Amino acid sequence: MTPRAVDLIRRKRDGGTLDPCEIEWLIKGLKTGEVPEYQWSALLMAILWRGMTREETEALTASMMDSGTIVDLSMIPGRKIDKHSTGGVGDKTSLILAPIVAACGVPVPMVSGRGLGHTGGTLDKLEAIPGFRIDLDLDGYRRVLDACGLVLIGQTKEIAPADKRLYALRDATATVESIPLITASILSKKLAEGIDGLVLDVKTGDGAFMQRVEDARALAESMCRIGQGLGKDVVALITRMDEPLGKAVGNAVEIAECVRCLRGEGPSDLRDLSIALAAEMLVLGRAAATLEEARARCFQVIHDGSALDRFRRVVEAQGGDPKAIDDLTRLPLPRVLRDVPAPRKGFVTAVRARPIGHAAMLLGAGRARAEDSIDHSVGVLLNKKCGDRVHRGEPLCTILANADDAALQEATRMITEAFEVGESAVQVPEVILERLDYSI
Amino acid sequence: MTPRAVDLIRRKRDGGTLDPCEIEWLIKGLKTGEVPEYQWSALLMAILWRGMTREETEALTASMMDSGTIVDLSMIPGRKIDKHSTGGVGDKTSLILAPIVAACGVPVPMVSGRGLGHTGGTLDKLEAIPGFRIDLDLDGYRRVLDACGLVLIGQTKEIAPADKRLYALRDATATVESIPLITASILSKKLAEGIDGLVLDVKTGDGAFMQRVEDARALAESMCRIGQGLGKDVVALITRMDEPLGKAVGNAVEIAECVRCLRGEGPSDLRDLSIALAAEMLVLGRAAATLEEARARCFQVIHDGSALDRFRRVVEAQGGDPKAIDDLTRLPLPRVLRDVPAPRKGFVTAVRARPIGHAAMLLGAGRARAEDSIDHSVGVLLNKKCGDRVHRGEPLCTILANADDAALQEATRMITEAFEVGESAVQVPEVILERLDYSI
Repeated sequence: MTPRAVDLIRRKRDGGTLDPCEIEWLIKGLKTGEVPEYQWSALLMAILWRGMTREETEALTASMMDSGTIVDLSMIPGRKIDKHSTGGVGDKTSLILAPIVAACGVPVPMVSGRGLGHTGGTLDKLEAIPGFRIDLDLDGYRRVLDACGLVLIGQTKEIAPADKRLYALRDATATVESIPLITASILSKKLAEGIDGLVLDVKTGDGAFMQRVEDARALAESMCRIGQGLGKDVVALITRMDEPLGKAVGNAVEIAECVRCLRGEGPSDLRDLSIALAAEMLVLGRAAATLEEARARCFQVIHDGSALDRFRRVVEAQGGDPKAIDDLTRLPLPRVLRDVPAPRKGFVTAVRARPIGHAAMLLGAGRARAEDSIDHSVGVLLNKKCGDRVHRGEPLCTILANADDAALQEATRMITEAFEVGESAVQVPEVILERLDYSI
Repeated sequence: MTPRAVDLIRRKRDGGTLDPCEIEWLIKGLKTGEVPEYQWSALLMAILWRGMTREETEALTASMMDSGTIVDLSMIPGRKIDKHSTGGVGDKTSLILAPIVAACGVPVPMVSGRGLGHTGGTLDKLEAIPGFRIDLDLDGYRRVLDACGLVLIGQTKEIAPADKRLYALRDATATVESIPLITASILSKKLAEGIDGLVLDVKTGDGAFMQRVEDARALAESMCRIGQGLGKDVVALITRMDEPLGKAVGNAVEIAECVRCLRGEGPSDLRDLSIALAAEMLVLGRAAATLEEARARCFQVIHDGSALDRFRRVVEAQGGDPKAIDDLTRLPLPRVLRDVPAPRKGFVTAVRARPIGHAAMLLGAGRARAEDSIDHSVGVLLNKKCGDRVHRGEPLCTILANADDAALQEATRMITEAFEVGESAVQVPEVILERLDYSI
């Protein structure tokens, strides 16, 4: 007997559970129109309210994954490993760790997203490289992965189309912030990419979607359990996102920082987190037996230039200008540079990520609405981070803009307020707070 | 600045309140499409979850009322008073009290609904009278009211169209059972009819939507407060709906019972409740100073035949066959009569309303789905009610059907189980449990 959507909504509303067949029917009905969007959105609100059991979340993830193509990467040798971050400000580890991991011999098939709100997106950053194309089809995706050991694309229409529909609905109905719904959305896409293992970077703090560490832990646990239940190796790091990661916030400016990291330069917080995540990927990919051995391999491929070479190769393979990797002035440059001076002598005690991300968005580096366009040249370059000593008047950061207008004024105000300067030094907390290992 | 629907949904989701302008904007947006149904259904679920303040419920009611025509009945002298029941089994008081109240000089402009599920609807019962038309336009509505002192129609497309849209959405998204949403739905229609006062019959018990008296009381208080806030006199009676009201359940069979009541015959529970509600209406209509005086007037217009005459007149004015009122065999008659015998000697201790309503629906007297058609001739005629003494084999009731088929078998089983016969007499509780007076 066919279920009635209204009865399933009522059961979830009243705190009951849906069985896997019912969830599959609901997801199929979204495509066929048998379950219209107005029923799905009421169900989404009921799920946000009542939650989902592990079995329900697993069934939702599997049904969403099965709504499209599950990419077959079996012709490419080796265990394919990807990384996913829940998003933050200055969070550019993907573009550092993917070439590193590929250079160590583990293929990285990476399907990324765009930025929204105060957070950046890997695709937007990549498009700062002149000519870079993120819209490969599945054939191109496999070809580049085979040739370069890594590939960096956006969600195609074949991968988890139900997630695309549901995400748009959640975005319009204030039903984004639900752990089972986030879990199913992320994992349905990632598992459809053709991966064998996944490393999660679940961020918490001022600049993260999960501001409280308990929420980040709950999400990390949910994603690990469901991923494991669906047969994948999953490891999660819970990491601090109170201040921006690294020193660059924007698009071209973040690409430049990634290149510097791959050259062995770059800020230590960004380097250390990128290598920690890359090391997890190498262990899941069976390219290293221990995390210690894996970290040594990462340093080696940075030192010998092979990681940077992988990045250059993937840029070229995806239509980008490989010379931009060696000559960073070929990236889009801003016309206006404005320093933000320290208001007093002392120590930086906080650089709040969220207002800095919002300011970068205001300058044009991000989107307030999905249809907004991006200015790849603008952003913020931090000169001081939490724990640094400053003199009065010394630049805390440089704002990169294209016009001396009201947006720049507002961004300057927001960024100035994002810095806190105190009289005494503070202990800078570790970036990596917790590690969850659900590898098999 | 225009609000964004998603922000308002989020605020309600998080337990906040919406201001009257925002609620008005949301209701207008439903009509224009600016707030699509998928956003409204998520909002409805959030409202069901979080509730609404009195101010929010009042704003929602007013905005829904203002979504269509507010009928001007000022050319008809006197205070116009209506009654609304939250629905039950055998609940036919409208058709008894409206002619009584009209005969006492208080105009009754009544816009009723259809039955759904196990409950009957006034419109379906009226359509059992050959030729009776419930689909008058607003001109016809005023004309009949002016000529007869009462009018009995269905919701027109001009009255509270937003309620019609929202109700369909609530029905499909399991968001019916919310006190603020029920309040706004009922009152927006009733207040748009052009009334000055309203008497509410809020039912509780096995056959009611609100099975617990606390819920019925909360709904009654909500409707009284909001109605009063919008400038109307409102009185509510909370009444018991554990067993069917009166002895007839169906359509033609209920019309016949109403006519008998208007002749001064008919079961006492039905007569007493109809007169109690009518008396409240007379006091709100300023046709009586006290309930005692009002009740005396009601008995008088039954006794002198003027109430029945009013009914005959409104039937004729709305296209129905007035002879059917005097010759009840002109109403649709069933082909099959089946008695349900008492299984043992003793006292009836319960006649559960809900299974009897469901059985009547199964026979064709009601609708499982809104698009189902009605067989006006079928139903159930109770021979015994709670408290009555029975002999073994004596008929507890007679089932009226049109075919000796599986539906009749199933209905017979349900009805048999609905009766409980015990060894000793039980005290029959009062029908009227509480009275709430919010008249000004």
